[in-house]
Amino acid sequence: MKIKLAISLLLSCSWIAVSHQVFGQAPRGPQIVSPQVHADRKVTFKYLAPKANEVKLNGQFTQGDVQMTKDAEGIWSVTLGPVIPDIYPYNFRVDGVSVMDPANAEFFPNERFKGSILDVPSEKPLVHAATNVPHGTVSYTYYPSIGESTGSLLVYTPPGYEKNSAKKYPVFYLISGTTDTEETFFKVGRINFILDNLIAEGKAVPMIVVMPYGNPAARIAEQKGEPKPSDLISREGSDAINRSKMFETDLITKVIPFIETNYRAISNRTSRAVGGFSRGGGQTLRAGFGNMDQFAWICCYSAYLSTPEMETKFQHIYTNPDQTNKDLKLLWVSVGNQDFLYDQTVTFIDFLKAKRVNHKQLITDGGHTWMNVKTYFAETAQLLFK
Amino acid sequence: MKIKLAISLLLSCSWIAVSHQVFGQAPRGPQIVSPQVHADRKVTFKYLAPKANEVKLNGQFTQGDVQMTKDAEGIWSVTLGPVIPDIYPYNFRVDGVSVMDPANAEFFPNERFKGSILDVPSEKPLVHAATNVPHGTVSYTYYPSIGESTGSLLVYTPPGYEKNSAKKYPVFYLISGTTDTEETFFKVGRINFILDNLIAEGKAVPMIVVMPYGNPAARIAEQKGEPKPSDLISREGSDAINRSKMFETDLITKVIPFIETNYRAISNRTSRAVGGFSRGGGQTLRAGFGNMDQFAWICCYSAYLSTPEMETKFQHIYTNPDQTNKDLKLLWVSVGNQDFLYDQTVTFIDFLKAKRVNHKQLITDGGHTWMNVKTYFAETAQLLFK
Repeated sequence: MKIKLAISLLLSCSWIAVSHQVFGQAPRGPQIVSPQVHADRKVTFKYLAPKANEVKLNGQFTQGDVQMTKDAEGIWSVTLGPVIPDIYPYNFRVDGVSVMDPANAEFFPNERFKGSILDVPSEKPLVHAATNVPHGTVSYTYYPSIGESTGSLLVYTPPGYEKNSAKKYPVFYLISGTTDTEETFFKVGRINFILDNLIAEGKAVPMIVVMPYGNPAARIAEQKGEPKPSDLISREGSDAINRSKMFETDLITKVIPFIETNYRAISNRTSRAVGGFSRGGGQTLRAGFGNMDQFAWICCYSAYLSTPEMETKFQHIYTNPDQTNKDLKLLWVSVGNQDFLYDQTVTFIDFLKAKRVNHKQLITDGGHTWMNVKTYFAETAQLLFK
Repeated sequence: MKIKLAISLLLSCSWIAVSHQVFGQAPRGPQIVSPQVHADRKVTFKYLAPKANEVKLNGQFTQGDVQMTKDAEGIWSVTLGPVIPDIYPYNFRVDGVSVMDPANAEFFPNERFKGSILDVPSEKPLVHAATNVPHGTVSYTYYPSIGESTGSLLVYTPPGYEKNSAKKYPVFYLISGTTDTEETFFKVGRINFILDNLIAEGKAVPMIVVMPYGNPAARIAEQKGEPKPSDLISREGSDAINRSKMFETDLITKVIPFIETNYRAISNRTSRAVGGFSRGGGQTLRAGFGNMDQFAWICCYSAYLSTPEMETKFQHIYTNPDQTNKDLKLLWVSVGNQDFLYDQTVTFIDFLKAKRVNHKQLITDGGHTWMNVKTYFAETAQLLFK
């Protein structure tokens, strides 16, 4: 069998011809190792850019950008630390433009900014470390979503899920923030390793975690070939609420039925939790408060609802707090004391308190970061479905 | 419950404090849409870099780099095409440095270069398009690998796998190339959508596809905290062969047993295929020829074994060709006529021919590209396990 494919000849000559060069075959220059975590947990970053005028490091383990210096080969570098063991996003600012670290294959999935991931391990493995315990699986799967679009979900199934084909599991629906994608809780949050570790220690109930994409409006536009709506909408206001409603409709009418048909999920409200970070935290509160028949566990990370929105949309949550307190097994709100949403979140917590709506709160150090999200996830995962 | 975490106070003050800034909260500048595929399949690329002296587009749909031009806001842009529908890697060269497109969340998983993905759809959906057919699932799973490391696998299971808990499936072990990761066949090769489409049309047998990482030496070093060995090894020579052997040991003694324990895989050689691209193609030939008791289907994409290696290691393949021809259900070799490995691959094909070892060959237009890999995968997927 010898087939000579000649696609380009079959097509009009006005088409751009497929190039035959090998991608990345251009002269590679010196092989850069970056980041390099040293034994003392100092970290060296390197970036090759002979023609750049200025290269800075922007990392969530530093206060502000750090100047890097160039050597004779055109490699910019800086060594910092020691750095507290954790996973941190970082990037380089090359003449003011943010770029990933080309030497690092670990990246931050996001629609808007480009970040790489620095993983500084601890001697005693951190809760998100890949350790020698039984591991669950993270699956990329596809479902018929609203607007006749095809939606994408990441689904964590716990260790042993495949083997024990009779057991059913509770489900945690987990929503990431603005410009994050359905991959962010997996690739940056490492929620699979966190649960593997907590389950191995007997600290968390084996559960399924479903990670949807938080912005179906953008996906529908993209699949129709229309321009994507801007991600720069306000956190409150009618646009944010409308899009949140769209997400909620997708979650309730499409995602949950798909999961409960295709996975061994327990189908009742006490076995369903909803949680999320930032925009996903707002969506969590709206989906939870708006569908008390669906969820008994609500986990809000670094987010809030405003008092006007509570008063116009969710009066039923606080007019009869005893009923809410009976219905909700957990209402969790956490935020960092340097989060730019700290004040609003505290106002929301105070509102719940004044209205006698039971809740658990966690105020941590730090800001609106995925380091904090991991902490919040690990804390709530130990409370759910118990 | 009010817990005030004060991690930084518990640790030495010489540690760098965790920053509280929001990553990506720096002034974002104008929201760039890139790439933008127009109705006539011309494509506009944009990149914001006010201070750069020169920005070029490097895409596999063009011959060489294309100069971009800067507007008053500092946005560089160029419109090209129309472009033949396909999925193409591309990046920007900013003052000579290759960077991903920051406005595009679709990236090329690779350890060495940074590429984004341009998807130019066709009116009649291409074989790799996400269409409205039943979809399989791609799972990220972890296994105990050689060198006491934890290995990572991507596993495609076909539509209906979860529902029909009795059916067993044949398995295709699929290995990507140098500096690619275990994600590349999924994210760039889109082998899940290719199989979904082929299975829906009745053109491919439902199968499991297992995508391992091709460089266990690097993973072991990384997990031990040792410097990663260079990826710049020759394609032949003892170093390449030793590392290929290491991969083969992992595949045969770790990956296959893990898959056959944890998935409903048929456990015999006629239900096992091995395939791969570039370095993965060489590993495929070595693993296949070296383990004729394990695999009856061998698919080599854009790769070869040298005549000296065949003569020293794999004489048994051609000394009794009738036996080989009986044992192997498929020996496939394909390459592009502009691939930098074209000559060597044709020499390998000629060697097989001269030795009367049955094989199927496919010579396509084009080079050492993932556009070609998709074609080869789609062709072989229709032959396997029939």
